[in-house]
Amino acid sequence: MTVPFNPSAFDTLADLHDPVLAAALQRALDNKTKPLGSLGRLEALALRVGLILGTTAPVLREPQMLVCAADHGLAVRGTSAYPRDVTWQMVENFLAGGAAVSVLARQHGIGLTVADCGVDHDFAPRPGLVDAKVARGTADCLDGPAMTPAQCAEALNHGMVIVRALPGNALLLGEMGIGNTSAASLLMARLAGLDIADCTGAGTGLDAPAVQRKIGLLREVLQRHPDARTPLEALAAFGGFEIATLCGATLQAAQERRVIVVDGFIATAAVLVAAAMQPRVLQRCVFAHRSGERGHALMLAHLRAEPLLDLGLRLGEGSGAALAWPLLVSATALLREMASFESAGVATAGSEPGVTPAR
Amino acid sequence: MTVPFNPSAFDTLADLHDPVLAAALQRALDNKTKPLGSLGRLEALALRVGLILGTTAPVLREPQMLVCAADHGLAVRGTSAYPRDVTWQMVENFLAGGAAVSVLARQHGIGLTVADCGVDHDFAPRPGLVDAKVARGTADCLDGPAMTPAQCAEALNHGMVIVRALPGNALLLGEMGIGNTSAASLLMARLAGLDIADCTGAGTGLDAPAVQRKIGLLREVLQRHPDARTPLEALAAFGGFEIATLCGATLQAAQERRVIVVDGFIATAAVLVAAAMQPRVLQRCVFAHRSGERGHALMLAHLRAEPLLDLGLRLGEGSGAALAWPLLVSATALLREMASFESAGVATAGSEPGVTPAR
Repeated sequence: MTVPFNPSAFDTLADLHDPVLAAALQRALDNKTKPLGSLGRLEALALRVGLILGTTAPVLREPQMLVCAADHGLAVRGTSAYPRDVTWQMVENFLAGGAAVSVLARQHGIGLTVADCGVDHDFAPRPGLVDAKVARGTADCLDGPAMTPAQCAEALNHGMVIVRALPGNALLLGEMGIGNTSAASLLMARLAGLDIADCTGAGTGLDAPAVQRKIGLLREVLQRHPDARTPLEALAAFGGFEIATLCGATLQAAQERRVIVVDGFIATAAVLVAAAMQPRVLQRCVFAHRSGERGHALMLAHLRAEPLLDLGLRLGEGSGAALAWPLLVSATALLREMASFESAGVATAGSEPGVTPAR
Repeated sequence: MTVPFNPSAFDTLADLHDPVLAAALQRALDNKTKPLGSLGRLEALALRVGLILGTTAPVLREPQMLVCAADHGLAVRGTSAYPRDVTWQMVENFLAGGAAVSVLARQHGIGLTVADCGVDHDFAPRPGLVDAKVARGTADCLDGPAMTPAQCAEALNHGMVIVRALPGNALLLGEMGIGNTSAASLLMARLAGLDIADCTGAGTGLDAPAVQRKIGLLREVLQRHPDARTPLEALAAFGGFEIATLCGATLQAAQERRVIVVDGFIATAAVLVAAAMQPRVLQRCVFAHRSGERGHALMLAHLRAEPLLDLGLRLGEGSGAALAWPLLVSATALLREMASFESAGVATAGSEPGVTPAR
């Protein structure tokens, strides 16, 4: 099976490891009126955003939350605690402003775009909703591939097209899709080479026996697709349309040097697929949080990602990305607006006789 | 030594454990359009703020950052990597808007008040600066008590008076004082009954040998004051003026049922003293972060506090409290603004036949 999508188009992705700019950013941080390193992981965050935006005075402009939604064929087998209809009902809720991600996007002035990537429902067109529907849900991946190669390429391209049309220089990744933790677990197991039991959790709230049944089912699905080894083959085999669209969105945002803020388990799986095609994607990513979903910590470790928050969130939608957003704004504001020792007339460490400051 | 301050005045502090309101808050959270418990620790935060403000629809109004600054007599013995002048220089930096806490308060619309509680410097009066100076720094606590009983009571009362004059229903605690990690370590060792080595860290950046010297010095100080056993006696013996002022501010804010957002090692030490006088203070506290300062994790554990952030910050000033602030705003916004399953027409868990949701 060959997906008609050419990841080598992204081989031109610049290597952001720019030692001169990195040194200038570190110097700027070290000269701020604070003990060396005392802003902890916020300093690494400021450095990363500076490198992505290519400046020692980064300004985050018009952040955009992209919530991709789709249904999953495998979900008919009872992999979720919620019925399939919840996917479209939550899309309506996002658009009506009543979902968690709606509230948080409003709080932080983040633009919210909801993409119907393959929901089993007909939506009335309206502002904020993008029609990127490939089909009314993926096929059941226990019977065959979740998507055809053409469908997979279509979803990837949708993600690229959507991002091209969005303003700003930061993209936050969110998703909705009853059953989509299963697709994320399958992609993780296959692409990271991990046992499916370590990749599978309770999702929206399965009890322990239901999680065991889910693991057994996902193991069968993996055995059904022994040849789906490349990122594109795995994506087509396991789904879903929202994950493929987010994967395309990630590649496009990386190409444009946007700051990519990754939410939880499913959004990270989309980035896992994109990074498996082009590892430099990860240089553009900020991982918002470690979710409560079993498997996410391991997935983050596989990507060598250090998330900002650890609040036991397991909601998805982009809610964790929106919650972490003000930390990115803080990191850049501190870099731009804090005084230096010299400009503020503050004495530096070690100017006290007899004291050796540590670094 | 008797400090002329009567902590039993705070015995009227209401017990906020209101089972009826707590149940109403939990019900409101559980009916929101999200899987049960999926907002993780943000749900406990919403519950806490709801209990403090006494409503299922809490609104945080006009948050106030109080940064208390003072100098420390013990610091002449080389307990800090920075010279004493940095205390007053940083106060100027706070007021000029160039310090980390200034930048973060501006970002989040938090009012900033800087209190001179005992800085060894004469400040020109100006807006945002409160004169609460008790003396030009505490005495060297290796020679005798850091404060006289009257000075300790004066600093506590200053904190109460300052808070009474502040608007809003949330108080964020910040501090500045070269040498003040030593006072915090001493208070922690004495009031929590822990070995001083477990309570002492690098502060603003001592190297390992300097930390060992600091531990030895603090051990001597503890031996010098064997009878300083009550919270007030310990506070007077070890200092400092900014910690005592923050302690008074905490008691007053608790009395007024403000939400108290606690910053790092030194602010937590002030709350430790207040809570040792009146444990119900802790019901009003939200702990912003676990700092990189050795001892803070243990101090938080002693208070059974679960901080929101863990970013390796060790700057003080209230910077961690300001960074955590948007999470409090989010928690209350989600509680007020998220749709319920019923209002949004979203199906609930377990409505799929054959699936047993957990919880």
